[in-house]
Amino acid sequence: MNVTSDNVDNSGAGCLSGVRILDLTQFEAGPSCTEALAWLGAEVVKVENPKGGDPGRGSFGQPPGKDSWYFLLFNASKKSVTVNLKDPAGVQLVKDLARSADVVVENFAPGAIERLGLGYDVLAEVNPSLIYAQVKGFGAGSPFENNLAFDMIAQACGGVMSITGDADGPPVKPGTTLGDTGTGMLLAISILAALYRRKDTGKGERLELAMQDAMLHYIRVAFATQASFGVAASRAGAKLLSGSNPPCGIFPCKPGGPNDYVYIYTSRANPLHWQRLLELIGREDLIGDPNYATGPIRAEREDEIDAMISEWTRQHDKHEAMRLVGAAGIPAGAVLDTEELQNDPSFERRGIMQTIEHPTNGAFKMPAWPVRHNGAPPAVAPAPLLGEHAEDVFGRWLNLDSEAVAKLREDGVI
Amino acid sequence: MNVTSDNVDNSGAGCLSGVRILDLTQFEAGPSCTEALAWLGAEVVKVENPKGGDPGRGSFGQPPGKDSWYFLLFNASKKSVTVNLKDPAGVQLVKDLARSADVVVENFAPGAIERLGLGYDVLAEVNPSLIYAQVKGFGAGSPFENNLAFDMIAQACGGVMSITGDADGPPVKPGTTLGDTGTGMLLAISILAALYRRKDTGKGERLELAMQDAMLHYIRVAFATQASFGVAASRAGAKLLSGSNPPCGIFPCKPGGPNDYVYIYTSRANPLHWQRLLELIGREDLIGDPNYATGPIRAEREDEIDAMISEWTRQHDKHEAMRLVGAAGIPAGAVLDTEELQNDPSFERRGIMQTIEHPTNGAFKMPAWPVRHNGAPPAVAPAPLLGEHAEDVFGRWLNLDSEAVAKLREDGVI
Repeated sequence: MNVTSDNVDNSGAGCLSGVRILDLTQFEAGPSCTEALAWLGAEVVKVENPKGGDPGRGSFGQPPGKDSWYFLLFNASKKSVTVNLKDPAGVQLVKDLARSADVVVENFAPGAIERLGLGYDVLAEVNPSLIYAQVKGFGAGSPFENNLAFDMIAQACGGVMSITGDADGPPVKPGTTLGDTGTGMLLAISILAALYRRKDTGKGERLELAMQDAMLHYIRVAFATQASFGVAASRAGAKLLSGSNPPCGIFPCKPGGPNDYVYIYTSRANPLHWQRLLELIGREDLIGDPNYATGPIRAEREDEIDAMISEWTRQHDKHEAMRLVGAAGIPAGAVLDTEELQNDPSFERRGIMQTIEHPTNGAFKMPAWPVRHNGAPPAVAPAPLLGEHAEDVFGRWLNLDSEAVAKLREDGVI
Repeated sequence: MNVTSDNVDNSGAGCLSGVRILDLTQFEAGPSCTEALAWLGAEVVKVENPKGGDPGRGSFGQPPGKDSWYFLLFNASKKSVTVNLKDPAGVQLVKDLARSADVVVENFAPGAIERLGLGYDVLAEVNPSLIYAQVKGFGAGSPFENNLAFDMIAQACGGVMSITGDADGPPVKPGTTLGDTGTGMLLAISILAALYRRKDTGKGERLELAMQDAMLHYIRVAFATQASFGVAASRAGAKLLSGSNPPCGIFPCKPGGPNDYVYIYTSRANPLHWQRLLELIGREDLIGDPNYATGPIRAEREDEIDAMISEWTRQHDKHEAMRLVGAAGIPAGAVLDTEELQNDPSFERRGIMQTIEHPTNGAFKMPAWPVRHNGAPPAVAPAPLLGEHAEDVFGRWLNLDSEAVAKLREDGVI
């Protein structure tokens, strides 16, 4: 699918039309935040080191001599300029850009932006209307406020790993980069709320978010468990932290590969789920049997029940199992892997995945912003090449002509 | 800490002051979205079934005769009215509220809101300025668009489980309810972007988000792996999907409890991490040794290296290990559990956790909105009792006096 097709449009991308975001972020927590804003129509200008740019460009999954897939995924629809921040003229250039921006976002190591001379106090004086947003690993005032953090550190210190893994195994890091993208999404919400108010007040504000703090927002069901039992929430494999209403979990399907499982969930709130499942697997004889009547009773023979369901699921592949269980009115989901998702035509047809044409990396099908605005997700444009938009951005934001930009380049400022 | 203390304020909560949100959501995906908006200052009015309300009120972790902790966590700072949607007068009441609202949000089962007579077409005619936002399990046009979904179904079908768990074990469901809250956050972003545009245009729009589609947004690093290797991303326990730059992972600490581990990460991008770690553990003899010089070389003897680091970490508890490794300039994080996080005074001191005084459940310390606006997270107010705000909301939104509200109550409409 191409971005000009019918299944995407720019009605979503129009939302933030005219908003200028100065993007001093790298890797993922910051870039995921500004990318969401770009998809919704903001003009996001990445300011990158002339020597290689955002280190995410050279991150894992990098085809030789090209930008990494990782970079393409988290920087779509943005623009790029290079600025040498070790040169005072470069710092001045960023101040000038900040004067023309609505929002600045940064996720450097603690203290780095201040050492560059671009801290909150400096830029708020340059532009009192500026929304100045920062991501750090740990919050100001935390005992670890000066520590470095990455996704996995946030997931360890933010409780996520403690509740993920098998009941009798060690903590597991979820494959999702929640410490990064999960943080980026919360910051995007606060930026948008601040922009909304600013329309009336014209006043900027300072936003700060720590990755560790952000994780607490995503493990609140575990805090409910903690509040209920007064002890730390534990791990439960594929089952629920809150205790199951059996059957609930993953069940093996043919042909038995690493992801050949179907998730089946029978809800406490709907006793019909259990009855429908018995009908589906041909065990109508157990309907009404007091030995299986309620969740708490079934919990005492969960292994037996799981074996009974597995006997049925093993006769089907996961897609068929999902279809049959779902059609019977019981919540069910096949465990799908990235290859299956990447190749599932439904996502492309609906604009949830879109194929961009990147100038050096070629065609790349990637997840787009998944919210449909008036029927379609916004169209995705490819991530920028390093410094691709110097003339465009310095021209429109700073009124510099191409000669002036050439001079900056010659002087090593950009 | 009380909500009137210095470490919280309402500068964040002021952002959405004046925005009216009609909240037809239940459980978590919808409620987490509207709660974030409430924390940032919107007036969020939950419309609940007079017979028990949001089923989340009676969800797990419910003290006898009181609302569940789960409900308190996901419905703080909202208001509540009851409306009988099976009564045509109740449906009319919701239409009247929608006329006065800026946003309506719903996450009923597929087709339910239309059957109630409150579908998009109906409410958009009542109020063309309305932002109408919906969460479903699967997207319109997906083969499963009519299927029910819950958090775990979304995590199965959205690829999250396929990349979580031990390398040689079955898929694991992350303890985070990413299928719910992860979805809610993306919808909140689109709602805010739509509100921003609406300030200028006065025009409403329709927003739709499927939980399965939302999951793709959070597993993009796995899609980078998929793009690099052309096969499904696999599971890696506590290590990284993208392959490690050893040492990277969790290391056991004393006294050996289920969460007594410290995460240590030595970055590909910074060879000094490895050198500093050798100094810390007293193995300076290996600095410069070509058998350990680079990540790819170390990857060949990862077990040996992990054992060497573990020997050191086992001599410390996880807090001390985190402190020592972090102070040496190497990213590190203790695996913290919900009990440790709940009792860590740093979160309360900084307003990241706040204690609410709930009229029936009493004092409850809970995670607040973690973004600091001008230095402090917004103040949290307790979740509403069922129907608590009838007079207030029907009075201000619909101009009904207390007599008219009493009549609605008498007639069983509310």
